[in-house]
Amino acid sequence: MLRLDTRSDDFARKFDRVVNDRRESDADIAQTVRDILARVKARGDEAVADYTARFDRYTFARDEDWVITPETCKAAFDALDPKLREALELAADRIRAYHEAQLPADRDYTDDAGVRLGAKWSAVDAAGLYVPGGRAAYPSSLLMNAIPAKVAGVERLVITTPTPKGEVNTLVLAAAHLAGVSEIWRVGGAQAIGALAYGTDRIKPVDVITGPGNAWVAEAKRQLYGVVGIDMVAGPSEILVIADGQNDPDWIAADLLSQAEHDPSSQSILITDDHTFAERVEDRVDVQCAMLSTSTVARKSWDDNGVIIKVQSLDEAPALANRLAAEHVELAVDNPDALFAQLRHAGSVFLGRYTPEAVGDYVAGPNHVLPTGRRARFSSGLSVLDFMKRTSFIALDENSIGKIGPAAVALAEVEGLPAHANSVKVRLK
Amino acid sequence: MLRLDTRSDDFARKFDRVVNDRRESDADIAQTVRDILARVKARGDEAVADYTARFDRYTFARDEDWVITPETCKAAFDALDPKLREALELAADRIRAYHEAQLPADRDYTDDAGVRLGAKWSAVDAAGLYVPGGRAAYPSSLLMNAIPAKVAGVERLVITTPTPKGEVNTLVLAAAHLAGVSEIWRVGGAQAIGALAYGTDRIKPVDVITGPGNAWVAEAKRQLYGVVGIDMVAGPSEILVIADGQNDPDWIAADLLSQAEHDPSSQSILITDDHTFAERVEDRVDVQCAMLSTSTVARKSWDDNGVIIKVQSLDEAPALANRLAAEHVELAVDNPDALFAQLRHAGSVFLGRYTPEAVGDYVAGPNHVLPTGRRARFSSGLSVLDFMKRTSFIALDENSIGKIGPAAVALAEVEGLPAHANSVKVRLK
Repeated sequence: MLRLDTRSDDFARKFDRVVNDRRESDADIAQTVRDILARVKARGDEAVADYTARFDRYTFARDEDWVITPETCKAAFDALDPKLREALELAADRIRAYHEAQLPADRDYTDDAGVRLGAKWSAVDAAGLYVPGGRAAYPSSLLMNAIPAKVAGVERLVITTPTPKGEVNTLVLAAAHLAGVSEIWRVGGAQAIGALAYGTDRIKPVDVITGPGNAWVAEAKRQLYGVVGIDMVAGPSEILVIADGQNDPDWIAADLLSQAEHDPSSQSILITDDHTFAERVEDRVDVQCAMLSTSTVARKSWDDNGVIIKVQSLDEAPALANRLAAEHVELAVDNPDALFAQLRHAGSVFLGRYTPEAVGDYVAGPNHVLPTGRRARFSSGLSVLDFMKRTSFIALDENSIGKIGPAAVALAEVEGLPAHANSVKVRLK
Repeated sequence: MLRLDTRSDDFARKFDRVVNDRRESDADIAQTVRDILARVKARGDEAVADYTARFDRYTFARDEDWVITPETCKAAFDALDPKLREALELAADRIRAYHEAQLPADRDYTDDAGVRLGAKWSAVDAAGLYVPGGRAAYPSSLLMNAIPAKVAGVERLVITTPTPKGEVNTLVLAAAHLAGVSEIWRVGGAQAIGALAYGTDRIKPVDVITGPGNAWVAEAKRQLYGVVGIDMVAGPSEILVIADGQNDPDWIAADLLSQAEHDPSSQSILITDDHTFAERVEDRVDVQCAMLSTSTVARKSWDDNGVIIKVQSLDEAPALANRLAAEHVELAVDNPDALFAQLRHAGSVFLGRYTPEAVGDYVAGPNHVLPTGRRARFSSGLSVLDFMKRTSFIALDENSIGKIGPAAVALAEVEGLPAHANSVKVRLK
């Protein structure tokens, strides 16, 4: 864990290092992924079956081995403990409500020159959702990906998920039922992304691919960006907690650990103006961490990537937060709006002392798929817009082309595009 | 030029081939671009200067050789022919008006559970606009890229453009003045994209890179997607004209040629229900093409990639158009709205007989940077949103956390994330 103080002479240099530290494995998997994608493109299902046997030790002996049926998902949902089922339903309802309010409005108007202009939004035809296997398979992630697609109006929602040695995660299947997903393929890794993008005999291609995955999945999505739409390039995640000394150190320690327990490469950063409070939080992190079943991961994340930044005043915090452009930012103060107004770059912000980041992971409603690794400088969390696209439109008539057409002719001619000019000229007068 | 008829037995197969034909050069430039980017990242300005000397035969002898000053741009603008200046100003005003109406609204509301939720939009800090050198340097493209960024509120707008042997395009400089861009670097190619993404001693990094470029520039943007935001992966462009027999064949021929003259890889497609009309258009294409200064390019594009599809009824057209998902779609009929309502996948649509696509290239207002190569299935034209991002926010209080917190605890526990659960539990009761 790194301790910084804005009064130190070398603060700027050390803070720069925190900002620029990528925490990302630079293993050269790009070539492996290129090979997998090329083979899936050329050989289709045969390649998918080969890779699944090799990487997941799962063999497609019969047709029905390829899929998980809606009936299986419904059975998983019906078998849920009632309390858990209610929790999932509450989450789904709140996520749906937040994303429904996000739906964009079409535009259609006629301006002063008599030109009709506008934009019409439509959903993509098909979306593929990647769901990781093993411990990173979260029902909450399924809801966060599938519900915005459904709200956008996507007709075909496809899940691909690895089932190593045939094992399935029943919670994820229950969430798939709740979200209304009915097409699930037992395929994972880069081969699943290739199948979704290019299509195979069995798996029809999709238009957009979202969802978390390991480094191979992420690289496959990156390589196929442009062939299909993707949600984002994801990296290790992070939390920045900005807290004054009036917080309960146990609460803030819990928040820092909730990020740290995700992955050893996760990062938790505390900015505070109270030195004694900082020390107390540090102590509470140690005490709480020892009691967690995830303590090994959380400990390593905090030791390797944790940072506590002591500032003279919280007025210094927004500038530092904008440099960090963190995925999650908590403002644990009495009047968070003053600080929030100065935040320009953040994935999601949690206002006040009673808003731990974890409520955003599950039940608050906004999407928990958020830009990581400083990408909040230029990108946004997942939304219905990721499953929609906009078609602009223009309508002129005999009068309005007379008003704006001559300018188009002048510009086309000077750009050396005579056929452009001609297509307007023939309609003038 | 390919003639298809939906009544033919082999129509489906031949149409599939049109849909899936990529028309993109598959030259393996990826490795060259990787090398250039790696060198720019490692060596900065030195690498940029080397590549500029090698590829553009332009040497940075003094500091002032690196840039084009705002004064130079203003002089270029002042020297414009008044008619051309008015045309540029009309274009800029109309583009600005359309994009201002596109600005997204923030959200901030409190729901039934007492949870405050919302989303706040902010502009990126800095955007880089690539402007090609030579004949593909269009002042209209500069306006279409720079004005949405300005409207979004981007504070720093940077242009990079190659100036082969020192040559500049004064029209582009005039447009830069009009758009209010004040930072212009005489750097092009993949090295310019690398400098914008990574930053060098001279060129500060940007957050988003947009603008057209050759295959190296496009590949560099694709490779750096995730390090920065980019507008899109661009390919050869296309027009689809859906026209009944009541059109003047000369008008439709002009529209087809306006796309064909861009590039030999451009594609112009006509769908019509009138066989005689189709033949007349074909004749007029030949006659008009011969008179164009761009006839060599237009001829090759039409011969290699042009398609005329004869349908029994225009009712068949929307389904074909949705498969093609073309960049530009003209609906040259009396009542275009009925067809338009069935179009789901198109970059921009031009309604009625008096709306040639070229008005959209210059003066209509909507952006002319549009998804090509069937990417309208999942992506949209350039907009202010490409220069902005959304931060979601959540605020709970002592009451509302009691309502939704327990569900978060239940889900965190079942997902095996005890610190997540704990961060909520400590705040309950």
